[in-house]
Amino acid sequence: MTGLRVGVIGTGMIGREHIRRLSTVQAGVSVVAVTDVDAALAARVAAGLGAVTHPDGLDLIASPRVDAVVVCSWGGTHEEYVLAAIAAGKPVFCEKPLATSPQAALRIVAAEARHGGRLVQVGYMRRYDAAYRALKKVLDSGVIGAPLMMHCAHRNAGVPGFYEPEYTITETAVHEIDMVRWMFGSEIVAVRVLRPRVSRHAGELPDPLLLVLELANDVLVDVEISVNVRYGYDIRGEILGEDGTVALGEPGLVAVRRDGRVASPVPGDWRDRFGAAYDVELREWAVSAAGGVPDGPGAWDGYAAAAVSDAAVRALRTGERVTVTLAERPRPGDERARA
Amino acid sequence: MTGLRVGVIGTGMIGREHIRRLSTVQAGVSVVAVTDVDAALAARVAAGLGAVTHPDGLDLIASPRVDAVVVCSWGGTHEEYVLAAIAAGKPVFCEKPLATSPQAALRIVAAEARHGGRLVQVGYMRRYDAAYRALKKVLDSGVIGAPLMMHCAHRNAGVPGFYEPEYTITETAVHEIDMVRWMFGSEIVAVRVLRPRVSRHAGELPDPLLLVLELANDVLVDVEISVNVRYGYDIRGEILGEDGTVALGEPGLVAVRRDGRVASPVPGDWRDRFGAAYDVELREWAVSAAGGVPDGPGAWDGYAAAAVSDAAVRALRTGERVTVTLAERPRPGDERARA
Amino acid sequence: MTGLRVGVIGTGMIGREHIRRLSTVQAGVSVVAVTDVDAALAARVAAGLGAVTHPDGLDLIASPRVDAVVVCSWGGTHEEYVLAAIAAGKPVFCEKPLATSPQAALRIVAAEARHGGRLVQVGYMRRYDAAYRALKKVLDSGVIGAPLMMHCAHRNAGVPGFYEPEYTITETAVHEIDMVRWMFGSEIVAVRVLRPRVSRHAGELPDPLLLVLELANDVLVDVEISVNVRYGYDIRGEILGEDGTVALGEPGLVAVRRDGRVASPVPGDWRDRFGAAYDVELREWAVSAAGGVPDGPGAWDGYAAAAVSDAAVRALRTGERVTVTLAERPRPGDERARA
Amino acid sequence: MTGLRVGVIGTGMIGREHIRRLSTVQAGVSVVAVTDVDAALAARVAAGLGAVTHPDGLDLIASPRVDAVVVCSWGGTHEEYVLAAIAAGKPVFCEKPLATSPQAALRIVAAEARHGGRLVQVGYMRRYDAAYRALKKVLDSGVIGAPLMMHCAHRNAGVPGFYEPEYTITETAVHEIDMVRWMFGSEIVAVRVLRPRVSRHAGELPDPLLLVLELANDVLVDVEISVNVRYGYDIRGEILGEDGTVALGEPGLVAVRRDGRVASPVPGDWRDRFGAAYDVELREWAVSAAGGVPDGPGAWDGYAAAAVSDAAVRALRTGERVTVTLAERPRPGDERARA
Repeated sequence: MTGLRVGVIGTGMIGREHIRRLSTVQAGVSVVAVTDVDAALAARVAAGLGAVTHPDGLDLIASPRVDAVVVCSWGGTHEEYVLAAIAAGKPVFCEKPLATSPQAALRIVAAEARHGGRLVQVGYMRRYDAAYRALKKVLDSGVIGAPLMMHCAHRNAGVPGFYEPEYTITETAVHEIDMVRWMFGSEIVAVRVLRPRVSRHAGELPDPLLLVLELANDVLVDVEISVNVRYGYDIRGEILGEDGTVALGEPGLVAVRRDGRVASPVPGDWRDRFGAAYDVELREWAVSAAGGVPDGPGAWDGYAAAAVSDAAVRALRTGERVTVTLAERPRPGDERARA
Repeated sequence: MTGLRVGVIGTGMIGREHIRRLSTVQAGVSVVAVTDVDAALAARVAAGLGAVTHPDGLDLIASPRVDAVVVCSWGGTHEEYVLAAIAAGKPVFCEKPLATSPQAALRIVAAEARHGGRLVQVGYMRRYDAAYRALKKVLDSGVIGAPLMMHCAHRNAGVPGFYEPEYTITETAVHEIDMVRWMFGSEIVAVRVLRPRVSRHAGELPDPLLLVLELANDVLVDVEISVNVRYGYDIRGEILGEDGTVALGEPGLVAVRRDGRVASPVPGDWRDRFGAAYDVELREWAVSAAGGVPDGPGAWDGYAAAAVSDAAVRALRTGERVTVTLAERPRPGDERARA
Repeated sequence: MTGLRVGVIGTGMIGREHIRRLSTVQAGVSVVAVTDVDAALAARVAAGLGAVTHPDGLDLIASPRVDAVVVCSWGGTHEEYVLAAIAAGKPVFCEKPLATSPQAALRIVAAEARHGGRLVQVGYMRRYDAAYRALKKVLDSGVIGAPLMMHCAHRNAGVPGFYEPEYTITETAVHEIDMVRWMFGSEIVAVRVLRPRVSRHAGELPDPLLLVLELANDVLVDVEISVNVRYGYDIRGEILGEDGTVALGEPGLVAVRRDGRVASPVPGDWRDRFGAAYDVELREWAVSAAGGVPDGPGAWDGYAAAAVSDAAVRALRTGERVTVTLAERPRPGDERARA
Repeated sequence: MTGLRVGVIGTGMIGREHIRRLSTVQAGVSVVAVTDVDAALAARVAAGLGAVTHPDGLDLIASPRVDAVVVCSWGGTHEEYVLAAIAAGKPVFCEKPLATSPQAALRIVAAEARHGGRLVQVGYMRRYDAAYRALKKVLDSGVIGAPLMMHCAHRNAGVPGFYEPEYTITETAVHEIDMVRWMFGSEIVAVRVLRPRVSRHAGELPDPLLLVLELANDVLVDVEISVNVRYGYDIRGEILGEDGTVALGEPGLVAVRRDGRVASPVPGDWRDRFGAAYDVELREWAVSAAGGVPDGPGAWDGYAAAAVSDAAVRALRTGERVTVTLAERPRPGDERARA
């Protein structure tokens, strides 16, 4: 792979993680430019890299020294930066969410369609996780027959103080929303959100929840969302097919026998569980950005996730089953997209 | 334990299984009398046991040589026999269902209440299963905190040809309905039944299903019901508590490594999975029938299961959330019950 | 099964356990006579059963009211009682060891051979354990090919104060010695005992140990013996075959997720682990004693176990590889056995 | 990390794997020079990298454009190249074995000691495997108490046609030999090799084997070596401590339920099982080579592994217990080492 010069917008926690990964997962990639609303922070990060700083994201995107862009800034800024990258014809990796509303995400979809080729990748890392990939491989092999249902659980040990009630959908369940669409190759057409007894650790949050997702192909998916389980970070999934099932395995690097029990560690947080998936995600993105088109989750996936999240938030508020109606998907070169 | 002379009504498959168990799980128990609509069958079974036959269940119940009664006849006959046993003051073990309608079950509840003490046990064997008991013990210990949700799956490899669509509820899900009430010590107050994509093995059956049960204490339970999974008989359950979870373990007597896989056997049917639970169930019933009051699932449990099943059948038909309203529970010696 | 009247010699802990089992695992069996060196204890046990007491084991064996005998007295008395039972032509279940020396065991073998039919069963309960039976079934099916090696571990949480250094072999490893002979249908021809670092919990005991058993069919078996592991009672085994392996599964009735771990309980002692095996053992013995010949571990198995234990004790003392030479096995009616 | 210019000696299968890894695990590392006895192969590999070729390893080592050396050539050449790298003061990563005899390895130890600082790393990748690291972390935490024994199994699905009988030790068991020394921080002082029944898949190989390793701290380690198990590549290990045990977990990315079984995949070969460990190994080596001293397995470890392998080969041939006597370990700047 020839060298890829990456500019990173946003040098907060996630931005710095991605910079570290870009420097360790793939030879030939270099982060040459950074920017952040906190200019002093950006300067410190740049100094450690031998990179330059830019006054803002648009300036960074415009730089001829930047081949590809990583957007890790605050969600409200994503649309502007991704549109600018598309306008500049540069590959852009945008952390989730692609945009803060389905409408905004759809504008990105349309812009990329007008451009005529894939430039956008959204940061849904589960598609790069070895266990989810193995799950999908078994499903696609046909060995368990046609899929009928999927049971999921998404459990966080805890969440930070700024976590809002609707983040249970937009920050947490959104990973399952994207995963399910990818796993089954079918859009989500309706959402229910059921509210069990509330955990004493929940504070003001609706925690736990049970999401029920209906897919266009009639597969039914239930997802437990729990964000204060205390015991660890635990991601579970089992697909029921006509002839069998396939489930995510139990990690368990080691098993300790002591005090009447045999015990294996549960991941502590998403870094433990998905660290390797982030590595693969950025490696594959960098390779594709250097030489071809991204084949990871794209603008349409970001739009669909936003539309389903939107419906799920309404379902959470109202207690009703909410249907999801997606816009028509434009194709590259499609006249409607150009309109 | 002093000898207990048992009469068995119904010598079909289940009846003969129970006769065998009564002869092997507990010394001092003897099956002294049997009856069946197929008199020739009853005669053959009686001959093998050195027991007598009776022309019908009421005659058997009335016999002074019968101390306690086991009812394994067709469900439509249960009410009459159980009421007769109560009238005779004899302990009676009745295979599920206790009766064919909530109203009929309630008549039994009232009769037993007028009698003034426990005589009736209903055949919900999961309460005697070592794994479910261990689950309940962990829950009751408080180690996982207050319960919030439970995820269940009930999978049959296949079902016989006479299996009707509503049996998914009344014959299959009813085990989870009773288990959940016992596990959480709380009544089920509402039921939903969601219909995923239908398995190609389903024939005319609504298979699989997702039941959602709401409990009075706000615990939410989801239950996958699949009756044609082909791969085996698989019963799963995980309780989410505020501080952790507890799940039924994976049996797996042995693990075989061959051909690129490590594999453990899954039970083939309910005999494999719950054989030992049936043993314990009948042993504990026989001990209590010989000397004390039954403490297993009783008439009220049979009534509540019937009422929830009834609601679930309506939910299955209508697609709606159906609430469950139970009658007031009589207490022994209660004037209302005597009315 | 017609009624079997059992006499029990020795009403210590094991004796009372067996009496309890004989009263609960099989209808039609009754313990009608007991005896113990502690006459007062025997009287109390007899009173609870409605049984009679005898002044000693020989008197009990001679009683015409006793159909079959269970020997649970001190090991030094086993030979005399078992020989007496053979002389009386009565089925006898003898707790391990069959006798205190290979020579004594061989006298029993010869006596039974002269009698001309199986009367003796020795209390090796592993042959009745569902997991070991499943292991053997897989092995015998040929699915893993011809056996080459087996790895075992036998771990006790702790041992009582009277446990002697050589009990590591004669009381503990002897279970693996019998199991291996049964599993592979081949005699053990040589033994090594290696001594690792000693546990600080070992006191005066050689703990842990590694036994290496060589079989006549060239299968090699290693057995870890640890009798102070503290964490529980843990029995492990994996057979390596030419085409795969089969291992005892991990029990794990439930899995608890809490405090960063997913944990399953380990059995606390042999009752937890082998309780059901003892039930099956006594049930099958009682059935065979009532109507046929025992097919469980017999006198020859007791002799072979004694001979291998003897060799292993020498190997433990000397650090050398010790070969095992068995006497020629008599056949019922064989003249040599009659000599 | 500033750029590290690596020269690779040997562009066979392993060499090309390492080149690929050096290009993907760490930004800033570049392979700038290669050489191979097959000059045409070296030229093709160099062309793909934009690297130069050298006529031989010594020429490559001498190049001022090469900062650090990776030796993947035939084992018989390792000593010469490693000594040359030490003489040039360049960090060198040498694939196992470090040399073809303990004496040769000791010459490298002495040369490095004279040099006065660590330059050599040997390719024992297990020290970089997440599961082995977790095992060691638990052991070192003291939670299972002082170690007493370890049980290992090393199983290959099959081996290539050129695999020699002694490779069971020198190519296969040598990984456990190094791992054990690292795990327990203690040297191996004696070795036994026991020969079970031979697999029908073994051809001329002594397969399987049971190695028994005695450590200076009295820990006893048994290692099953099987190189034709067919079913997959399976690496197992359990450490028995005074208060508990710790074992390598079962991988199992997914669990498939079908046809009466729940099954998880077993790795197919060492790439599946240790691919990530190789990544970490080369990443950590590159980082240390660029800026500091290697802290991975060094020349002494290569020597000790060679000495134990040598003893094990003798034990394999003779059937005897063979003791291992290591030379005195020189320290950097030690006068004896300089002699």
